[in-house]
Amino acid sequence: MSNTFGNFFRVTTFGESHGKAMGCVVDGCPAGLALDPLDFEADMSRRRPGQIKFSSPRKEIDEVEILSGVFEGVTLGTPITLLVHNQDQNPQDYDDLKDVFRLGHADFTYQAKYGIRDHRGGGRASGRETVARVAAGVIAKKILAKLDISISAHVHPALDEEMLQHIINEKDSIGSSIRCQVAGLKAGMGQPVFSKLSSDLLGAIASIGGVRGVEFGQGIKAATMRGSRHNPIDKGILGGISDGNIISLQVHFKPPSSIGIGGRHDHVIAPRATVVVEAMVALVVVDHIFYSFSDTINGVIKNYKS
Amino acid sequence: MSNTFGNFFRVTTFGESHGKAMGCVVDGCPAGLALDPLDFEADMSRRRPGQIKFSSPRKEIDEVEILSGVFEGVTLGTPITLLVHNQDQNPQDYDDLKDVFRLGHADFTYQAKYGIRDHRGGGRASGRETVARVAAGVIAKKILAKLDISISAHVHPALDEEMLQHIINEKDSIGSSIRCQVAGLKAGMGQPVFSKLSSDLLGAIASIGGVRGVEFGQGIKAATMRGSRHNPIDKGILGGISDGNIISLQVHFKPPSSIGIGGRHDHVIAPRATVVVEAMVALVVVDHIFYSFSDTINGVIKNYKS
Amino acid sequence: MSNTFGNFFRVTTFGESHGKAMGCVVDGCPAGLALDPLDFEADMSRRRPGQIKFSSPRKEIDEVEILSGVFEGVTLGTPITLLVHNQDQNPQDYDDLKDVFRLGHADFTYQAKYGIRDHRGGGRASGRETVARVAAGVIAKKILAKLDISISAHVHPALDEEMLQHIINEKDSIGSSIRCQVAGLKAGMGQPVFSKLSSDLLGAIASIGGVRGVEFGQGIKAATMRGSRHNPIDKGILGGISDGNIISLQVHFKPPSSIGIGGRHDHVIAPRATVVVEAMVALVVVDHIFYSFSDTINGVIKNYKS
Amino acid sequence: MSNTFGNFFRVTTFGESHGKAMGCVVDGCPAGLALDPLDFEADMSRRRPGQIKFSSPRKEIDEVEILSGVFEGVTLGTPITLLVHNQDQNPQDYDDLKDVFRLGHADFTYQAKYGIRDHRGGGRASGRETVARVAAGVIAKKILAKLDISISAHVHPALDEEMLQHIINEKDSIGSSIRCQVAGLKAGMGQPVFSKLSSDLLGAIASIGGVRGVEFGQGIKAATMRGSRHNPIDKGILGGISDGNIISLQVHFKPPSSIGIGGRHDHVIAPRATVVVEAMVALVVVDHIFYSFSDTINGVIKNYKS
Repeated sequence: MSNTFGNFFRVTTFGESHGKAMGCVVDGCPAGLALDPLDFEADMSRRRPGQIKFSSPRKEIDEVEILSGVFEGVTLGTPITLLVHNQDQNPQDYDDLKDVFRLGHADFTYQAKYGIRDHRGGGRASGRETVARVAAGVIAKKILAKLDISISAHVHPALDEEMLQHIINEKDSIGSSIRCQVAGLKAGMGQPVFSKLSSDLLGAIASIGGVRGVEFGQGIKAATMRGSRHNPIDKGILGGISDGNIISLQVHFKPPSSIGIGGRHDHVIAPRATVVVEAMVALVVVDHIFYSFSDTINGVIKNYKS
Repeated sequence: MSNTFGNFFRVTTFGESHGKAMGCVVDGCPAGLALDPLDFEADMSRRRPGQIKFSSPRKEIDEVEILSGVFEGVTLGTPITLLVHNQDQNPQDYDDLKDVFRLGHADFTYQAKYGIRDHRGGGRASGRETVARVAAGVIAKKILAKLDISISAHVHPALDEEMLQHIINEKDSIGSSIRCQVAGLKAGMGQPVFSKLSSDLLGAIASIGGVRGVEFGQGIKAATMRGSRHNPIDKGILGGISDGNIISLQVHFKPPSSIGIGGRHDHVIAPRATVVVEAMVALVVVDHIFYSFSDTINGVIKNYKS
Repeated sequence: MSNTFGNFFRVTTFGESHGKAMGCVVDGCPAGLALDPLDFEADMSRRRPGQIKFSSPRKEIDEVEILSGVFEGVTLGTPITLLVHNQDQNPQDYDDLKDVFRLGHADFTYQAKYGIRDHRGGGRASGRETVARVAAGVIAKKILAKLDISISAHVHPALDEEMLQHIINEKDSIGSSIRCQVAGLKAGMGQPVFSKLSSDLLGAIASIGGVRGVEFGQGIKAATMRGSRHNPIDKGILGGISDGNIISLQVHFKPPSSIGIGGRHDHVIAPRATVVVEAMVALVVVDHIFYSFSDTINGVIKNYKS
Repeated sequence: MSNTFGNFFRVTTFGESHGKAMGCVVDGCPAGLALDPLDFEADMSRRRPGQIKFSSPRKEIDEVEILSGVFEGVTLGTPITLLVHNQDQNPQDYDDLKDVFRLGHADFTYQAKYGIRDHRGGGRASGRETVARVAAGVIAKKILAKLDISISAHVHPALDEEMLQHIINEKDSIGSSIRCQVAGLKAGMGQPVFSKLSSDLLGAIASIGGVRGVEFGQGIKAATMRGSRHNPIDKGILGGISDGNIISLQVHFKPPSSIGIGGRHDHVIAPRATVVVEAMVALVVVDHIFYSFSDTINGVIKNYKS
């Protein structure tokens, strides 16, 4: 459903960009995992604007509060609630947006859908919504680390600094891309037909604001390749199921949309979004791993009887 | 879950490519819709191989049997079961595949996952699995037609016949692309955050076998565009919600993988897959429309009291 | 959703009582389980009318056809489709029901909901719908047997034969009760809050046609007991989670409703329903066992790495 | 899933009884509903102990904070997060429970499941967990009020004050029962087979801690009635679907379990649980109403086009 992601490891997010707080409830996290508020710092700071000079100057200090699910530093198996309080709210900054539908922005569609919107900002359509995804992703990555699986995303291709400065000077914005890799995942993860590892990954990534295209493996290039060349290098996911090789994903973002209208926004999406892509990929991979525990009757017997 | 798609209009598919039958159960179809076995003919014949000369010569006659859910030509509101019997089975054709893992094929990953596979063909990873998607898509499209919404997909860009003949002669295969458009959908369909219309569409399409990349709107091109140019033409879906304009999707397929090993397979995926893409898009759109009926309290009052 | 039951081990049923066939798709059954059409005989014959003299004389021969998901006698991990063809259909027997809403029957509510109904019989509200539950339950019980868990239901209390004969003579019907026990389930199965083993069991059983009350443990009696007496004997499920002791459930059925109007119906529900109760209980228990495989981080590591 | 309830109107609850806060995220609430923190006061105070002299003296002041989903007093269509902070925590009161498994309590089963537990109290198995259900129920009841549907629960049968005082003096506890009625629900709500209105109601109510039995209509009494007497009075829900008459439910609670061990607990469950039963019933009814908006093709056309 709309604000819940995952089947076995489930994340429900909440919060408007200019409301009191953003956050999420992580349900289905195994008991016995060490979890500390400090675990979130590195990824939250990768998501934070300001460090990258082409990003919005809004400098949130996104400390994660653990509200439930952890006792004496260890997960209980109960729902883990993570809260990030919103700061630096100046509603008056947005008063002029009350009756404006910003070009290329979700203002119009939210109004069409709900007959009401929080005109102070993007509400749920704001990039700030991803703060909850990143927080949940930290837990997923901690689980994956225990299984020797790592996920890493980086900007792709590198942004030209000179060109970016030019774009900022012109109060314009530009599109961008990210590559993400999953290493260490064993063969056999993913499900046939509608819950392919590939389709779940692509759908999950496509839910990040601003995404306009997603690929895996050779991606779109494959559409112009011959089988004799493509088949031997088609690795990572086959038939929707992992084959034990590195999985490679590419994500493409539109240029941010709210430039020149006011507020404080980024000129390019990718730099701050790498950690969001990692989070969504981690959520999908954990979910599929849990899903796989009943793949075979021998596995079921072993898992139950031990 | 793996073989069920959708939340409100739900399709559960079943069947192995070389088993007795393929089929699906459609749950959540409104009562009172006229439905006849002949309704499936046009789309089933678009999916059928043989008509396109670059496709596999396996000529199934894919008649759809309605096993439940329809009484005197009208849907009852109960689950609609559609069956397509498999024909032209020559298991001995596949005996030599028993101990072979075909390059670029899901044989290996299925074996890794389940410790067993139906070596006669792709099983659930076979392109034949899509027969059930197409059948379900016909019902979804009938509902959309009542709402003046149409979906149409075509090969993109056109395949060069001469080049294709060359590829066939070389027993090779080639990648391909499809463009799909949704016309007539009103503004406000789609849900924020994880069930965006865009991400649900991209994830659904990516579940079709052989897909390696999916885009919407300006797609990957947007990743190299400036906001000043992109924002005014960024239409169809904004913030994950339809804006009333035509929605444009692009799908990219790898070259088919089983060429040169035996069996009977296609040299290119797109021509037969247009109708499968339409089906998946139709399933997503119907689901989101039903989802929208409780978007506002005024809508709820009106829908309940009428 | 309406016609799908379960989260990890999922059953989707279909079929109207007087349509072509009843059946189900079982998704999430582990690969490698031996499964043969003969496996269904014993339970299908327990559900069949005629053997019990107080039941309807309609004598279906309910052979189960395996349409998909099994190859060379072993489950593939793909969806298992089970079909039971309807026989002995005499639509003319029901012509007089076209414009009648039978007392105590779902005719009226189906018409109110869908604006249409299959007047030939109960459609999905017919007791015949349970044939698909029983078939799916056979698979679940085969899995449980591998884990040394057994489920058994019997009529409770015993029906007085003389009184029943009297009821039949008077063309009346009577209510009845079933007790069901789960033996061998280890401690720790079930989930807190909304997916308690107890609430999932009671809800599942309550979905069987004619049920008007469900209890577990000391049941309704507990409502008049003191803690000093009740607490020491409150065993089986605590806080929604199994404690390793036998779990005891009680189910109460109304008298069947269609007596004296025509058609061929039972005078009492419980005798044929024991196997249906067992099936629903088996589905819930299997689902919860699969659910438990990611309860702890140590379990996750072990299950993934082995 | 475990901590999420509902399909269309979904509630995810969180919080341990002795952690920082309890709360829930309500997803799928229609936009445009007036909602104020004061709306929760009446029901929260019905749930609060202390007012009823036979209940625990722990006097929480359960103020509900709206953390998200409401802007200028009106719901946005986005997830509504409700927080209730825990007060009056004296962890030292519970130190002596660290190594004790309380009789008739979930301590043992939680430990068996997760290998860890919050020994300070029941954690998620505590009665305090219901605070989040009540808060969510308030929103559901506000929606139902707009549709002229009301839900009311009361203790049944009345508790004898003298006997209760005796039980308190003896440091004992006693079982209890609740009757709940739904009035004003039109015919046609509920879904066949697995999502019957009746089974969803019974399952939902059975998820409340301490429930040992649930009934609807004539309930368990029906199991000993004849059809000639029962059929004419079998009203409210037929075939799992509402018939427009009042729906009557009965709930039976065991005696509370933790008496005589320490901590502060109730001697009887029903008085404070009436509002919890109402909440669960309201959640189910709202969910089924939203579910019904796509029951017929004519309804779909009307709901979409208006």
